[in-house]
Amino acid sequence: MDIASIVGLVMAVGLIFWSMLSGSAPISVFYDLPSVLVVIGGASGAVIICFPLKTVLNLPGVVKKVFLNKTESVPALIEQLVSLAETARRDGLLALEGRLGEVKNSFIRLGVQMAVDGTRPEAIEDIMRTEIDATATRHRDGKAMMDQIGRFAPAFGMIGTLMGLIMMLADMSDPSSIGAGMAVALITTLYGAIVSNVFCIPFAEKLSFYNKQELVRLEIIVRGIMAIQSGENPRVVEQKLNTFLPPKLRPKEEAA
Amino acid sequence: MDIASIVGLVMAVGLIFWSMLSGSAPISVFYDLPSVLVVIGGASGAVIICFPLKTVLNLPGVVKKVFLNKTESVPALIEQLVSLAETARRDGLLALEGRLGEVKNSFIRLGVQMAVDGTRPEAIEDIMRTEIDATATRHRDGKAMMDQIGRFAPAFGMIGTLMGLIMMLADMSDPSSIGAGMAVALITTLYGAIVSNVFCIPFAEKLSFYNKQELVRLEIIVRGIMAIQSGENPRVVEQKLNTFLPPKLRPKEEAA
Amino acid sequence: MDIASIVGLVMAVGLIFWSMLSGSAPISVFYDLPSVLVVIGGASGAVIICFPLKTVLNLPGVVKKVFLNKTESVPALIEQLVSLAETARRDGLLALEGRLGEVKNSFIRLGVQMAVDGTRPEAIEDIMRTEIDATATRHRDGKAMMDQIGRFAPAFGMIGTLMGLIMMLADMSDPSSIGAGMAVALITTLYGAIVSNVFCIPFAEKLSFYNKQELVRLEIIVRGIMAIQSGENPRVVEQKLNTFLPPKLRPKEEAA
Amino acid sequence: MDIASIVGLVMAVGLIFWSMLSGSAPISVFYDLPSVLVVIGGASGAVIICFPLKTVLNLPGVVKKVFLNKTESVPALIEQLVSLAETARRDGLLALEGRLGEVKNSFIRLGVQMAVDGTRPEAIEDIMRTEIDATATRHRDGKAMMDQIGRFAPAFGMIGTLMGLIMMLADMSDPSSIGAGMAVALITTLYGAIVSNVFCIPFAEKLSFYNKQELVRLEIIVRGIMAIQSGENPRVVEQKLNTFLPPKLRPKEEAA
Amino acid sequence: MDIASIVGLVMAVGLIFWSMLSGSAPISVFYDLPSVLVVIGGASGAVIICFPLKTVLNLPGVVKKVFLNKTESVPALIEQLVSLAETARRDGLLALEGRLGEVKNSFIRLGVQMAVDGTRPEAIEDIMRTEIDATATRHRDGKAMMDQIGRFAPAFGMIGTLMGLIMMLADMSDPSSIGAGMAVALITTLYGAIVSNVFCIPFAEKLSFYNKQELVRLEIIVRGIMAIQSGENPRVVEQKLNTFLPPKLRPKEEAA
Repeated sequence: MDIASIVGLVMAVGLIFWSMLSGSAPISVFYDLPSVLVVIGGASGAVIICFPLKTVLNLPGVVKKVFLNKTESVPALIEQLVSLAETARRDGLLALEGRLGEVKNSFIRLGVQMAVDGTRPEAIEDIMRTEIDATATRHRDGKAMMDQIGRFAPAFGMIGTLMGLIMMLADMSDPSSIGAGMAVALITTLYGAIVSNVFCIPFAEKLSFYNKQELVRLEIIVRGIMAIQSGENPRVVEQKLNTFLPPKLRPKEEAA
Repeated sequence: MDIASIVGLVMAVGLIFWSMLSGSAPISVFYDLPSVLVVIGGASGAVIICFPLKTVLNLPGVVKKVFLNKTESVPALIEQLVSLAETARRDGLLALEGRLGEVKNSFIRLGVQMAVDGTRPEAIEDIMRTEIDATATRHRDGKAMMDQIGRFAPAFGMIGTLMGLIMMLADMSDPSSIGAGMAVALITTLYGAIVSNVFCIPFAEKLSFYNKQELVRLEIIVRGIMAIQSGENPRVVEQKLNTFLPPKLRPKEEAA
Repeated sequence: MDIASIVGLVMAVGLIFWSMLSGSAPISVFYDLPSVLVVIGGASGAVIICFPLKTVLNLPGVVKKVFLNKTESVPALIEQLVSLAETARRDGLLALEGRLGEVKNSFIRLGVQMAVDGTRPEAIEDIMRTEIDATATRHRDGKAMMDQIGRFAPAFGMIGTLMGLIMMLADMSDPSSIGAGMAVALITTLYGAIVSNVFCIPFAEKLSFYNKQELVRLEIIVRGIMAIQSGENPRVVEQKLNTFLPPKLRPKEEAA
Repeated sequence: MDIASIVGLVMAVGLIFWSMLSGSAPISVFYDLPSVLVVIGGASGAVIICFPLKTVLNLPGVVKKVFLNKTESVPALIEQLVSLAETARRDGLLALEGRLGEVKNSFIRLGVQMAVDGTRPEAIEDIMRTEIDATATRHRDGKAMMDQIGRFAPAFGMIGTLMGLIMMLADMSDPSSIGAGMAVALITTLYGAIVSNVFCIPFAEKLSFYNKQELVRLEIIVRGIMAIQSGENPRVVEQKLNTFLPPKLRPKEEAA
Repeated sequence: MDIASIVGLVMAVGLIFWSMLSGSAPISVFYDLPSVLVVIGGASGAVIICFPLKTVLNLPGVVKKVFLNKTESVPALIEQLVSLAETARRDGLLALEGRLGEVKNSFIRLGVQMAVDGTRPEAIEDIMRTEIDATATRHRDGKAMMDQIGRFAPAFGMIGTLMGLIMMLADMSDPSSIGAGMAVALITTLYGAIVSNVFCIPFAEKLSFYNKQELVRLEIIVRGIMAIQSGENPRVVEQKLNTFLPPKLRPKEEAA
């Protein structure tokens, strides 16, 4: 659960709603279904063209990640790898099979399983790194989609406003309707700006931050698995992996 | 057939049309031939200056590719190369000639033909890599053209709107025609925004994605042909080429 | 105390206020609470989504640094390191413990303490460099936050203006209120432009300058501590560290 | 003669003129001498400040190149170099002097002359590469000038429009002249957009394309001259230089 | 004296003034002191925050350099270094002391003085390169300041215009003053555009050009001094330094 994402979103959306409510006009002036469809639908259509279908279908998962990213702690991760290294050192690689049940991280499980199966070290590393690359690409595509929606939403907002203005200007026989016509025309630009600045751009930034963090964790796991596989001393494994931690978070004996 | 490109385009264009139809004004207010000519013609003129004639004439092919890109599956490609490697290993390089008929990919055919002809390995690799470079350049030029039209269309939209406003402002003797004059003036900006955001920018993104994919396929083919030519064991060829695949798509024995 | 930051800020803010006061309208026309909340609150909300909570909570410290950055002089820093090197050379590393009290810079203290504790040189350097990396990341995040607020403030200014315009246009029954309505609508755009151009962008630039300076100082300290630890001749230590100074600031004998 | 540049320019300019003529207003409303001077003169002034005088005076040559670039064919170039290599191999380097008259390319002549004069190979290569660098710099400056005019023209268009609006707004005693005043004010923005999008940006792109092509040709010449000077076998020279050609354009025996 | 900078500036400023004078409104409509203060003062304030005080105080020198840059000719520079090399070779390094009086370039004097003082070659090179780095940084900061003013001036122009519009809109009791109010409001945007496009951006470009040129000259001097110090043959020194010249400017014997 990402508190910052929720607090920030509630804050931005709340203030916009409060501001709409506190004005003299009824809040209904801010709602117009065709405008919603042009901005959201148009931007979605453009983004669907941009990416392969598989990537587009991944969008709900991408959005979910902004709010529910599991921030597995790095020290706990290192602890688990060191504990697996102890088992491997004491009872042999095959003993790791009995501990697979308690490992939740599927990437660790993949590595341990391959070690237990006796896969060659180079093959293990190659497969894990290919998996990391695929993860990085999937993450990058997720962020890129957010960036693109954030770019197309204002553009379709402008397209909607231009259409509204043209319709209004083409028929000005009833002067009293001009204001309302322009109000409706501007709504798409407002929608585009909100979709882009309240949702897409901040989401893309948060995803970019998570991606960097996730890649560090995957790198730690690969190095841990390789060390376990080669039967290294658990203390050495710990020291190696701890170099990924800022000194404050390192256990005391490291500095000694 | 690229479903995503078609779905996205139908969605974006459809919503814009539906929005035009659902307005109070007749849809004819959105059509103005001189405006079409200024935006499409002007942007085309600018793009024709930018690129050499040969590249410009390639534009229809570029657009077609957004919708009809043949996404040859990578595993099938590897399978075919491995099968050719088996023939070469069992019956010699010359036996590949008999199988040329069943190979549809012209780049594989080029490589196999050279191997059959006894061309030196360095010459084969050099020629195939030069071909890849030429393909990459052609693709990059195609995407660049889309990007440029997407950049010039809004600019010529603005030029058209400025011309329309100047004409309208220069003669305001009939106040009742001002609205209609401005409506017509704004149409070019609308056209420019639609050409750019519904067609050119998304098309350029999709092309960029296809180009990356195509270059991976060509790289796989070059490595496959070189391995075939040197008479490598088909199993080794398969393992080498499979490293281009994400682990999920690799055949099982690879992980063993 | 950063004089330039204060002078510049007083100058920009003062001129804007003076200009508001010297106009014919009462200054109260420039104040609108909902507008403040939409721009400041909305931009804050968006930035809170962008970054992890820990980084966001660091914002007051970041702003404080623009004005109160302690610009420890580099020659004084070198002098202190050379003096510590003399003590270490004359009386041994352990003698440094007695001098820890007079060292204010916590990064030097960290290094000296590790040297006194007999930590291995590679571990000292590794820990100090990890600390530098963490500092660089923290600084970069601080600047990035300023940049993002400077980017979101005008966007939320535009969102506020669009909302104001839509409310005004939706109800134009009282023509005399149109001007005031538009005035209020424009206030958010004004706020966004001021927040961005008077505060965020200049602050981000100043932070970027300080960050570069700080990293040079940390680099000098690491090299100084490593030289002290290895018991180098204090004169050699001085010469090495002086290469970070422009020739004008170097003590005379260096050039001899 | 660059057909594409001419066709594109005629197309863009023609459509703009046709659109001006087909409007209801007389075409004279689009002409205003002070506006021409502010946009063209102002942008020229800014560009003259940007560059050293020598570069600015080169502008007419730069524009001419967009239309009259001599696209010497690369195969013909290679053929000539191979023919010179044959003469040098058969009759010695001095025999090349007799063939200088038939060589039109001044860069080949420079190289051959130095070879005939017995200049050391390193000096020949050094001088030719310095010449290539100078050519690249000259080309880059030419493109940069076009880019800058394309950037300043719209800026001075906006300056002109602001001046026109201020003049119009300062004196609104005669309401009937407001429209005409705004029309004139907008003309500079129109001029700026046309100068930039019809001329400067497309010209800069075309120059950039020619520059890349020209540098390939110069590189081929340097390698050819160095091979001739060292008395290499003309067949080997041909093979080496042909690697710059796409396979389709290479003579047949290369692939054998 | 930089003719191009002066001609370009006179041309751009002159055309703007002429255009203001040739309009129907008195030129006084373009002058408004508060607007000058908001744009110039506000942008200055923002830039003062961005940079350390020392850099800001260097601004007048930066501007002066756009017009008075001493373009010492490179061939003359090389000639002087070769002449010093001859003296050093013939009469020994100490004899250079007698020639220091005729050397105007302070960077050459610094180098020669150190050579005469018997400073170690590595120390000479180190000190001279540190000086070059400092010069490059100073130049880069100068250009960066121009760029920043060019970025803040239009921003403060917009801030001023928004303030003017808000004041005007808040009190529309006297319709006849609306035009004049808008005219004044637009003046700050005009000032911002002129400051940025007529002065700052072109000045920054010219500085960037001079900086590149200056760094080449300093590099030549360092290499010359190092060659003189090591007592190299003056002819070899000349040849080495001439490689910085385009072939056309090299003395004849080089090509022989």
